[in-house]
Amino acid sequence: MSTVSAYAATSATEPLTKTTITRRDPGPHDVAIDIKFAGICHSDIHTVKAEWGVPNYPVVPGHEIAGVVSEIGSAVTKYKVGDHVGVGCMVNSCGQCSSCKAGLEQYCKPGATFTYNSIDKDGTPTQGGYSQAVVVDENFVVRIPDSLPLDKAAPLLCAGITLFSPLRHWKAGEDTRLAIIGLGGLGHVGVKLGAALGAEVTVLSQSLKKMEDGLRLGASHYYATSDRDTFKKLRNSFDLILNTVSANLNLNDYLSLLDVDGTLVELGIPEHPMQVGAFPLALSRRSLSGSNIGGIAETQEMLDFCAEHDVTPEIEVIAADYVNEAYERVLASDVRYRFVIDISTL
Amino acid sequence: MSTVSAYAATSATEPLTKTTITRRDPGPHDVAIDIKFAGICHSDIHTVKAEWGVPNYPVVPGHEIAGVVSEIGSAVTKYKVGDHVGVGCMVNSCGQCSSCKAGLEQYCKPGATFTYNSIDKDGTPTQGGYSQAVVVDENFVVRIPDSLPLDKAAPLLCAGITLFSPLRHWKAGEDTRLAIIGLGGLGHVGVKLGAALGAEVTVLSQSLKKMEDGLRLGASHYYATSDRDTFKKLRNSFDLILNTVSANLNLNDYLSLLDVDGTLVELGIPEHPMQVGAFPLALSRRSLSGSNIGGIAETQEMLDFCAEHDVTPEIEVIAADYVNEAYERVLASDVRYRFVIDISTL
Repeated sequence: MSTVSAYAATSATEPLTKTTITRRDPGPHDVAIDIKFAGICHSDIHTVKAEWGVPNYPVVPGHEIAGVVSEIGSAVTKYKVGDHVGVGCMVNSCGQCSSCKAGLEQYCKPGATFTYNSIDKDGTPTQGGYSQAVVVDENFVVRIPDSLPLDKAAPLLCAGITLFSPLRHWKAGEDTRLAIIGLGGLGHVGVKLGAALGAEVTVLSQSLKKMEDGLRLGASHYYATSDRDTFKKLRNSFDLILNTVSANLNLNDYLSLLDVDGTLVELGIPEHPMQVGAFPLALSRRSLSGSNIGGIAETQEMLDFCAEHDVTPEIEVIAADYVNEAYERVLASDVRYRFVIDISTL
Repeated sequence: MSTVSAYAATSATEPLTKTTITRRDPGPHDVAIDIKFAGICHSDIHTVKAEWGVPNYPVVPGHEIAGVVSEIGSAVTKYKVGDHVGVGCMVNSCGQCSSCKAGLEQYCKPGATFTYNSIDKDGTPTQGGYSQAVVVDENFVVRIPDSLPLDKAAPLLCAGITLFSPLRHWKAGEDTRLAIIGLGGLGHVGVKLGAALGAEVTVLSQSLKKMEDGLRLGASHYYATSDRDTFKKLRNSFDLILNTVSANLNLNDYLSLLDVDGTLVELGIPEHPMQVGAFPLALSRRSLSGSNIGGIAETQEMLDFCAEHDVTPEIEVIAADYVNEAYERVLASDVRYRFVIDISTL
C-alpha cells in the first residue's frame, strides 16, 4: 500500500482541499500508474456538489487520467513500466454480462465500477485522478500513442470517448450532416472528431461568440440558437445531432432540425425530465437517444484515431491548487475548452 | 362528377349524420373505387372531435378503405375494373422530395395529402371512406390479395401498416424480444404481425383482462402494467417496444424495460408532452422514436405479407347507422378489436 497526495472534496459546499489517500499494491493483473495529468470534467463538479446524489465523501474526482506505468502485477501482459497509459471513467465491470461480453462495459448490467465515488472489487471506495498515482486492472487501462502529448490526451479519456462512441455508433461519416449543440469541453472535441470522420459539421451555440473557434476547429457552419430564424432555416437539415449541453433545452425545436430517420443523442444529463412531443418524433421517424462514454476497446480505438488524425482537445493546463477556481470558471463557461491539472504541482 | 352517400361530422360535438358528397370523375391516372368496407380508427375520432386541431367540417372520416375498382382513368396501368383494392391514410404526396423518392410518402416534406381533412391537388377537401365511393390516383391505391376478405383487409390499411412499418424498420425477427403496449385496435395487429415475423411477443396491458386473447393471437407472455412487479421483473428485457397507447404513460418505466440499444417507438400520439429522463436513455443507449403509418410500397408489402401469413385483424362488422355508438365503444375500449362499417348498409 502506498500513500499519495490528492485533492478531495469533503462536502458539497466546501472547496476541495489537499489531502493524502492510499493506493493498493498492484495485484497480479494490476497496473500502477504515476499520474501526470488529469482533466477536469463537468461530471466531477456535479458529483462533488451532490447534484447527482450525495457521494461518499471524501471524493477525489478525476476520470481523465494520463500517466506513465510505474509498476505491473505478475500476470500483466499488456503493459510494461514506462508505457504511456490512460484511465477513463471506469476501472472495472462484471466481465460476465451480455454488455461486458460485447465490449460495452459502460453498460455493464450489474453496473461498472467507476473511477471515483464507486466501490471497488476489494470493497474500498474508488478515488480518481486528482492524485499522484492510481492502481487499475490492466483491462481498464488504455495505451496513449506516443504522438499524443499526455496533457492533451487526458481529456480524451472522457470528453473524447463520450463524443467518439455516438459518432461511431450512429455511423457519422462523409454523408453525415452532423450538428453539435454547445461548444464547450465536450462539444469542441465533437467538432474535431466529426470533421476528422468526414462529416459536415454545424455548431449550434447560444451565441456567435465562439464562432471563429468553431470554424477553426473544423465546423463548416455555425448558428446562434438565440436567433429563432436558426430553427426555421435549419428545419430537416441534420442526420445526427449530439447534444452536449446539460441545461434543459426546448428539445422539440432541436428535434425538428432532424431530417427523416435522424437521431438526437443526449450526452449531457439535464437536471429536469425532457419534454418531448410525439409529433416531432412520429412525423419524420426521428429518434431521441442517449449515450454514455464508450467501452474500453472503443476508447483505445478513439485514442488511436486521435493520434492518426491529430485530434487533440484545446486545453488550459493548471496547477493543482487552482482547482477550485477552475471549477468556478467551468460553471461560468469561462474555459477554452478543458482544464487539465498538472499533477507534478500536487 | 358523381354524388354518393356518406356519414359526416359537422361539428366537434354533434353525432355523425348521413349526407351526400360528390366525387370527381376519374382523371387519366385515377381509379374509382366502390367502397365495400371502412374501418373505424381512433384517429377518426380525434379528428372529428377537434382534438388534433379544428378540422374543415363537414368531415367524412375513414382511412381504412377496402373496395372494388369500378372505373379507371385512360392512363391507369396498375388496376382494372373488378380488382380488390385498398386506400389508407394518404391519397397523394409531392412525389419530388427526398422522402417521396425514397418511398416514404408518409414523410413527404411539403406534406402528404391525407385521405380526409386535407386539401386535394384540385383544391377540394378530401373526404374519407365512410362513403360509397372514392376516386384516388393509382399510385396511392394498393392491391388487396384475393385471399384476404375485404372486411378484414380494411383495418390493415391503417392499423396494419402502422405496426408493420416500425416492425420492419427496426428489423423485428426471430431474435427480437418485442413488447406491445396496449391490446387494442393497433396492438392486437402488432401481436399478430410480430408473431408472424418470428419475434417473441410480450403484451404489456393495464390488466390481465384480455390475456387469453393476447396469447391466442400470438403473444408468448402477457403482463399487467398496473402491477409494479412487472417493471422490476422485465427490466432490460426487450429489444423493441411498440407503444400503441395514446394516453400519457410514465415512459421512464417503459424505457427501463429495454435492453442496451433497445428502442421504444411511439405510435399513439399522447395529448401532453412526454416526460423523459436522460438517465434511462444514456445508461443503456436506449432510443425513444416515433413512426407514422408507412409508405405505399411498404403498405403493399404488408398486405402481401398478411395474405401469405394469414394475418388479419379481429373485427366487428357494423351497419353505417351504428357509427356513433361505435365511437362511444371505441372510447370505452369496448371493442375486440376493430369496428368495420359495411358500406352496403349506407
